Amino acid sequence: MQRTFRLTISCPDGVGIVAKVGQFVSSHGGWIVEANHYADPISGWFFMRHSIKAESLPFSLEEFKQKFLPIAQEFSMEWAVTDSAENKKLVLLASKESHCLVDLLHRWHSGELKCDIPCVISNHDDLRSLVEWHGIPFFHVPVDAANKAEHFHRVSQLIAEHKADSIVLARYMQILPEDVCETYEGRIINIHHSFLPSFAGAKPYHQAAERGVKLIGATCHYVTKELDAGPIIDQDVIRISHKDTVEDMVRLGKDVEKMVLSRGVRLHLEDKVLRHGNKTIVF
Amino acid sequence: MQRTFRLTISCPDGVGIVAKVGQFVSSHGGWIVEANHYADPISGWFFMRHSIKAESLPFSLEEFKQKFLPIAQEFSMEWAVTDSAENKKLVLLASKESHCLVDLLHRWHSGELKCDIPCVISNHDDLRSLVEWHGIPFFHVPVDAANKAEHFHRVSQLIAEHKADSIVLARYMQILPEDVCETYEGRIINIHHSFLPSFAGAKPYHQAAERGVKLIGATCHYVTKELDAGPIIDQDVIRISHKDTVEDMVRLGKDVEKMVLSRGVRLHLEDKVLRHGNKTIVF
Amino acid sequence: MQRTFRLTISCPDGVGIVAKVGQFVSSHGGWIVEANHYADPISGWFFMRHSIKAESLPFSLEEFKQKFLPIAQEFSMEWAVTDSAENKKLVLLASKESHCLVDLLHRWHSGELKCDIPCVISNHDDLRSLVEWHGIPFFHVPVDAANKAEHFHRVSQLIAEHKADSIVLARYMQILPEDVCETYEGRIINIHHSFLPSFAGAKPYHQAAERGVKLIGATCHYVTKELDAGPIIDQDVIRISHKDTVEDMVRLGKDVEKMVLSRGVRLHLEDKVLRHGNKTIVF
Amino acid sequence: MQRTFRLTISCPDGVGIVAKVGQFVSSHGGWIVEANHYADPISGWFFMRHSIKAESLPFSLEEFKQKFLPIAQEFSMEWAVTDSAENKKLVLLASKESHCLVDLLHRWHSGELKCDIPCVISNHDDLRSLVEWHGIPFFHVPVDAANKAEHFHRVSQLIAEHKADSIVLARYMQILPEDVCETYEGRIINIHHSFLPSFAGAKPYHQAAERGVKLIGATCHYVTKELDAGPIIDQDVIRISHKDTVEDMVRLGKDVEKMVLSRGVRLHLEDKVLRHGNKTIVF
Repeated sequence: MQRTFRLTISCPDGVGIVAKVGQFVSSHGGWIVEANHYADPISGWFFMRHSIKAESLPFSLEEFKQKFLPIAQEFSMEWAVTDSAENKKLVLLASKESHCLVDLLHRWHSGELKCDIPCVISNHDDLRSLVEWHGIPFFHVPVDAANKAEHFHRVSQLIAEHKADSIVLARYMQILPEDVCETYEGRIINIHHSFLPSFAGAKPYHQAAERGVKLIGATCHYVTKELDAGPIIDQDVIRISHKDTVEDMVRLGKDVEKMVLSRGVRLHLEDKVLRHGNKTIVF
Repeated sequence: MQRTFRLTISCPDGVGIVAKVGQFVSSHGGWIVEANHYADPISGWFFMRHSIKAESLPFSLEEFKQKFLPIAQEFSMEWAVTDSAENKKLVLLASKESHCLVDLLHRWHSGELKCDIPCVISNHDDLRSLVEWHGIPFFHVPVDAANKAEHFHRVSQLIAEHKADSIVLARYMQILPEDVCETYEGRIINIHHSFLPSFAGAKPYHQAAERGVKLIGATCHYVTKELDAGPIIDQDVIRISHKDTVEDMVRLGKDVEKMVLSRGVRLHLEDKVLRHGNKTIVF
Repeated sequence: MQRTFRLTISCPDGVGIVAKVGQFVSSHGGWIVEANHYADPISGWFFMRHSIKAESLPFSLEEFKQKFLPIAQEFSMEWAVTDSAENKKLVLLASKESHCLVDLLHRWHSGELKCDIPCVISNHDDLRSLVEWHGIPFFHVPVDAANKAEHFHRVSQLIAEHKADSIVLARYMQILPEDVCETYEGRIINIHHSFLPSFAGAKPYHQAAERGVKLIGATCHYVTKELDAGPIIDQDVIRISHKDTVEDMVRLGKDVEKMVLSRGVRLHLEDKVLRHGNKTIVF
Repeated sequence: MQRTFRLTISCPDGVGIVAKVGQFVSSHGGWIVEANHYADPISGWFFMRHSIKAESLPFSLEEFKQKFLPIAQEFSMEWAVTDSAENKKLVLLASKESHCLVDLLHRWHSGELKCDIPCVISNHDDLRSLVEWHGIPFFHVPVDAANKAEHFHRVSQLIAEHKADSIVLARYMQILPEDVCETYEGRIINIHHSFLPSFAGAKPYHQAAERGVKLIGATCHYVTKELDAGPIIDQDVIRISHKDTVEDMVRLGKDVEKMVLSRGVRLHLEDKVLRHGNKTIVF
C-alpha cells in the first residue's frame, strides 16, 4: 500500500475551496489518489478528504501543516493531515464476551487492520490467554459496584500510559465516566448490540424479542456523554424469525456486531469519518 | 396453482397434536403439500399450518370444519380452515401518495396477488383515474379537522358495504378510530415508513435524518389501538449515507415501503401469518 | 431541485487535473455542489464528475463547452457537460411482461425519474392501454422469425424519429441488431434476469433452479454486440430456498429486476455512470 | 440446549407419510419440538426433519432405529436419526489463509459450534501455533507437484485415524482425489470464494474484477468429483464498487466466506441439510 498524506477538512461552504486546495496540492507536485467532497445543503457546511501520494510531495507532514495553515485560516477550516505510514495507537477495552475482541485482534494480526494495539484492558481475566497469544499486554482491572471510581481511574491511567490515540469498546459493557468521554471526544468507538435508536440501554435483544421485530442489528458509534446517543459511524441488520429465541438473537447478533465494529474501526483508522454535530460524514 | 385447504392452528403445546392432525388428514386421504409447525418454548404455545390438496379430500370446506371440530376442542385450538380458491376481499385505503397503491394494484392486475379488491377509498381525489383504469371503484371521502367522525363513519360504511375481509392502509396517513381497529382486529394491515420501534409516529424520515442513522426501513404490521405498536409482519431496510437528504430518504424509502407492504399482504392472503399476543408467527 | 451543469471527464491520470478543473470552475465563480474523482491504479486512468450550480456560472452550456475545450485538450480528456434542466429522451422497448415498464412509467409519472419518454415500442399489443393511460404514444411492432429485419428497421426508425438520447430495454426479450448497438453505444440499457455472468442467455431462472443456487439476481448493463456481456451498471440479489419453484423465482425476481433497472436508469439519467472498456465507474 | 433425536427422511411423496411418522412418535409419547416438511412438486420427492425431545421417548437411539425400520421400509425412505448429544467429529483442512479457520475455531471454542475437532491438517505450517493454542492437534502435510499422491495418502490416513464424520475445507486450496470425495460423499464441505456458478475454478476475485461485477460472493457446498459443482448449502454476497481493487475484494470477500462457511457447517452439524441429486433442502 502506497504511503499517503490524508487531508480532512470541515468548514462553511463557499466558492473556491476545492480549487484553492487543489491548487495548493498541485503547485507542490502533489498527486491526489483519492478525493471526496460533500456540501451539506441543510447546514451549509463543506467536508473534504484528500489522499495524496506522500512521495509526490517535496516536504514532510510538519511542513505540509505549516504551508497549508493560511488556506485553513482563510476558510475557517477545522482540519487535520495525517501520514498513512504512522500507525494510530488503539487501546481495546473488553469484558467477558470474546467475539468482537477476537475479530479485531485477528484482523490486526493478519495485517488487515493497520494500527498498533499497545494493550487490552478488561474487567475480567477470561480473555488474557487469547490476548497474550497475540503478543499484546493484557490488563485485568476488576470492577464492582463499590470500586467504580478506582476502576476508571486505573483504566484512564493505563490508556494514558499507553499513549492511546483512540479507544475501542469491544463489548466492554461499562459506561465510561464523563471526563474520559470528553478527553477522547471523537476517538472512542463503541458497538451497541441494537439498531439504534431502537433498544438503547441494557439487554437490547430481550427488548427486541419483546417487541417481535423481524430484523436485529448493531450500531457502531462515537461515545458521548449521553448513553448510546453519539454520532453513528455504521449500522447493519440481520433477518430473524419467530423461531429465534433471545439466545439465537445473541448468537446471530454477534456476527453483525463484529462486522459493524470492524468496519467502523477501519474507517476511523483511515480518517474517513468526519463528525459534524451528532452526525458523521463517511467518505 | 392447485386448490388447497389451509388449516391454521394455535393451541397450548402438548404431545400428540401433530399426530392427531396428521391422522385426521390422512384417514380421509388428504395429501399434505405444505406443513409448518412451531412450538414456542417461552409461551408453551404451539402453532401449525397445513396446506392440503382440496381434490384429495372427499368433502367440502364446511364438512372439513364439522369433522375437525372434536380435535379442535380436545386441544383447545384457535383455528381456521380456508379454501385457496375463495379470494379474500381487500379494501385499500390511500391518501395522495401513489407508490404503495400502484404497487399493490399492479401485483393484483398481473395476477401476482390473488384477491378481490372491491374498492379503494381515499381522503383525496388524486388517485381516482389510476384506480379506475384498473376497473376498481374509487371513493373519495374527504377529511379535515372538523369532519373526522363523519369521515370515519362513511369509511366504515363503505368497508362494510363492500364486505371487506381485510383492510390495507396503503399510506393512508389517518389514524383509524378504535371501534374499526376492534371490528377488524388482525385484519388491518398498515405500512409504517420506519424500522419500528424506531421513529414511530409522524415524519419518521425527518426523525431519521435528525439522528443520523445509516439505514432506513419500513414496517408492515397489524393495526391495533396503540399507534404503530401492533404485531409486526415484516420489515426491511435500505442503506443511506450522509449525502441523502430527507427528500432522498423519502424516495429511497418508497421502494422499501412497497416491497415490505406487498410481502406482508401476500403472507396475510395466504393465511401464513398467525398472531399471538403482540407477535407474529410467519410460516 | 437546483439546476446544475454536470461535467464528466475520463483521461490518463496525472498531476494537476483536479486543480486545473477546480481553478477553471472557481475562476468563473462556479459553486461545486458535488465532486467525485477516481484514479484507477491498474489502468492509470482518471475519472471525474463535477456538479456545478448553473446560476453560479456567468455563461451558458455552449460557452462552458468552448471555454473548457483547451483544458480538455491539454489532458486528452473524453468529456461531456450537460444541463440538469434539459431532460434526456428515453425510448422504452418492452414485450409482454409489464413489471419493469409499469415501474419505470410510475417513477416517471410521479416525478421521481426526470426525463422525457417520447414513446414506448413493443412487439406485443398487450401493454398499450397502460402506456396510453400515461399519455405516452405506444407503437406495436410485431416480430416473428420471418420478419426480424423488417421489425428492427421499423424499431430503429421509431427510435430515430423520436430523437431518443437513450434506449431502455424493459424486458424486451429481443436481441438488437449490431448496427443499433453501435449507433447507440453506451446509451442502451438492458435488464438481464440473472446475476451475470451466471446464467447469461435464455431462461436464467430455469438455469438457476437447475443449479440449485440459494440467491437469484438481476443485472442492469449497457448493451454491446456480445449478448449479456456489456458493462454492468448495477446488480442485486434476493434470497430463495428449496421451496421456491421456477414460478416463484420468476415472481421474486421481478422485484429485483425492476429495482435494479430503475436504479441503473436513474444513474444514467444523472450522468453518474462513466464507461471504461467493459467496466463502469458509478459516482 | 435440550437433548433431541433428529429424524431426517427423504422418500417418494405420497399420502399418509406425515401421519404415520407423527403417530409413531406420539404413540411412544414423543414430544416434537421442531418439524419440517417439503414436497418437491417437480421430482415428486418428499423431505422431512423432526426434532424430538430425547427424554420424552422411552427408548435409546438404537431402539428408535429398530422400531422405525418398518415404516422406513414401507415408504422406501432414505433416512437417519441422530442424537444431538453426540458430537460429530469434524476434521478441518486449511492452507495458509487463516480467516475461515480462525472463525470456525473461535465459534467452536466459544461453544457456538457444537462438535469435536480432533485435528487440523494443513499443507503449510503457518497456522500451527494458532491451532495448538486451541488445544487441537495440528498436522503439517506438505504438498508440491511431485508428491501429490503421497500428500493425499497421508491426509486420508489422518482423517481416518481421527474418525472424522465430516471434513471442512477451510480455504484448503487443493483438489481432493476422487476416492476421498466418494468415501465422504455428502460429508465434505467446501467454501468457494465466488457466487457460484460464476467464477468457478482459480482466482475468482481476479475473474470478478475482469468482468466488472458490482457484488462479490461466496458459496458453501458439498464437494463432489466435479470441481465447484456440488450441491450448494448456502451463498451470500457483498456490494463492491469500481474503487475496489482485487486486493479489496479479497479482503471484503473474506468476511462473506467465513460467514457463509460457518452457517453451512452449523446447518450440517444440526442435520438440517438434506441432499437430493445436485440440490439441497435446507430446513
